[in-house]
Amino acid sequence: MSDERLARLALSRLGEPGGLRLAGMVSELGAVPLHDELRAGAELRGLRAEVAARLADIEPARDLERAARLGIRWVVPGDAEWPVALRDLDDAEPLHRMGRQPLGLWVRGPLRLHELPAPVAVVGARSATTYGTDVAAELSAGLARAGSAVVSGAAFGIDQAAHRGALAGDGLTVAVLACGVDRAYPAAHKRLLDHLADHGAVVSELAPGCAPTRLRFLARNRVIAALARGTVVVEAAVRSGALNTASWAAGLNRPVMGVPGPVTSAPSEGVHQLIRSGAATLVTRAEDVLELTSPAGHHLVEVARAPARPRDLLGRRDQRVLEAVPLVRPAPPESVARTAGLAVTEVLAALDGLRRRGLVEELPTGWRLAESADEG
Amino acid sequence: MSDERLARLALSRLGEPGGLRLAGMVSELGAVPLHDELRAGAELRGLRAEVAARLADIEPARDLERAARLGIRWVVPGDAEWPVALRDLDDAEPLHRMGRQPLGLWVRGPLRLHELPAPVAVVGARSATTYGTDVAAELSAGLARAGSAVVSGAAFGIDQAAHRGALAGDGLTVAVLACGVDRAYPAAHKRLLDHLADHGAVVSELAPGCAPTRLRFLARNRVIAALARGTVVVEAAVRSGALNTASWAAGLNRPVMGVPGPVTSAPSEGVHQLIRSGAATLVTRAEDVLELTSPAGHHLVEVARAPARPRDLLGRRDQRVLEAVPLVRPAPPESVARTAGLAVTEVLAALDGLRRRGLVEELPTGWRLAESADEG
Repeated sequence: MSDERLARLALSRLGEPGGLRLAGMVSELGAVPLHDELRAGAELRGLRAEVAARLADIEPARDLERAARLGIRWVVPGDAEWPVALRDLDDAEPLHRMGRQPLGLWVRGPLRLHELPAPVAVVGARSATTYGTDVAAELSAGLARAGSAVVSGAAFGIDQAAHRGALAGDGLTVAVLACGVDRAYPAAHKRLLDHLADHGAVVSELAPGCAPTRLRFLARNRVIAALARGTVVVEAAVRSGALNTASWAAGLNRPVMGVPGPVTSAPSEGVHQLIRSGAATLVTRAEDVLELTSPAGHHLVEVARAPARPRDLLGRRDQRVLEAVPLVRPAPPESVARTAGLAVTEVLAALDGLRRRGLVEELPTGWRLAESADEG
Repeated sequence: MSDERLARLALSRLGEPGGLRLAGMVSELGAVPLHDELRAGAELRGLRAEVAARLADIEPARDLERAARLGIRWVVPGDAEWPVALRDLDDAEPLHRMGRQPLGLWVRGPLRLHELPAPVAVVGARSATTYGTDVAAELSAGLARAGSAVVSGAAFGIDQAAHRGALAGDGLTVAVLACGVDRAYPAAHKRLLDHLADHGAVVSELAPGCAPTRLRFLARNRVIAALARGTVVVEAAVRSGALNTASWAAGLNRPVMGVPGPVTSAPSEGVHQLIRSGAATLVTRAEDVLELTSPAGHHLVEVARAPARPRDLLGRRDQRVLEAVPLVRPAPPESVARTAGLAVTEVLAALDGLRRRGLVEELPTGWRLAESADEG
């Protein structure tokens, strides 16, 4: 066998996703030579000789054919479709004794991975609140409308809301799984996953048929973080998979963002810790995320401002007089003049103008602010 | 007249609180010489000669007597009760053409200003939500229980909740007003203010009888910020007095803290902007505030952790096996052994132990995680 894609497929079936040793040997020796040596029974750096027997049982060409019949393709580094964003994994520090680029990815769906537009990961708690799922859906819809692909993990709660929000925003969305892309985990999300496979992409390091394990979720999280320009955590309890994805994003030097929530809500606690510690930037809407994940200057956030109020349009003298008018107990013009440090004649002229604008009112005992003018 | 306290009182009645020119001249020339020169009709740096006539009408000794009958005292720099924390105002940049230490403070209540224990300002929106007032009260009660005095402005909404929370926590609390301390503004808070005057302190730069104006609220905010070691903003619309207090705290190089809320809630928007821009640190509870406002090491926050779970107590081999067990579809021990990279005999022993701990279950077709074990 000499085909890079087949060699990578066979090797990927030998180990668990994210395994450092195998990935390291592939990048050092090349997939094809490594595969050939192992099949020939060579004992390589502690890889047991028994792998030869296991490799003999693996039929990558048959796996590819079977997958193709299910509409699933196998993509490897060097392919046109390979997302270059994943390369950064080779330089990032390992987490949980895992790391490095996948040997390859199984993909189901029309969306091609090298064409993901400005992808952003939106992840969070499975046991999310309705606040969390509403916010995740709204945020993802906003990202989608702005042309960003939304990457998530198809789990209950925030993940599901992220995918659905992106679809509601007529946008692109990608699910990265910890099991084969032909499987539905959780089973309740079968229709969602089928829909994503029809309109977006469902992706996994694991071959079709493989089951999810805890280890595979941790490895999967690194693919979510690495596919995206940045990761947004919407709700996450203190120990949760979403925070693990955030750690991967931080290790990749990609922006980590957190959406705050009520401090009385446990699912927001992990996000608040991320923000408080400086590990994540607080974001409240899609524009904030786009500003942090786009090349400098592409998306500039307009800071929310209160609408201009009548008193913003006043000249300096009128402002000064207005600031000197009492809120409650009316004061005579002489008193206002003293407070404002202006002549009484000036103040009388100003008060007249302010009254016409509805900002002050004249009572028998003097002048005071009108009801509508607050103390700011 | 040669008494510093009387001279300061008379001068304070000449201008508005926070006025830079008068305060600057007092610190340069001294209150008594300045007062004497002005009374003598000297034209000093643009202060009009007419002030002589006005000063002639001011009777500070009579003001002091009247105030004393109302239980109100006048405190000036140099008095034992003068809070040294206010001195930093002389070094801070002016805001709204205001700044500097007050010429003096009127105080009503038994709490002495130089003895405020670890004071923290808790401020926020007048049009607060019940979420905001609940959180402000809870936070302030926690600060009070930890021995901190809570400083606020007695306004509707967050301010009121802060004072009430401190009282509920059996603690000390101080209201700083933008009008005379004998007045109730808002009128609905008369009972609250009377209670604070009986058990804490009500403070103002303005002489008894003076009315609130917009300018006086802005000047008042600098006193709140300067009395406290740090300022917490609980809810604040994009343009609000609470953000003005936060600006004063920042100008004084004191910690500015913000309590987040739902991103769907307008009153939290100003706080989120403060945190997002780095102007405020996110806090969720009294411990966070104490950590940021106490001398280093006095209050170390224990980071919230999820309770230890059974699998945290496992040895390395058992953890490794557990991570290789499928979530849904049972796998035979040989398959688990291959995934875990361990011998089948080892895996069988481990699975047996994990089953007894309730972490995995054995079915006719193999092993899988028990319902209670989530994928983290």
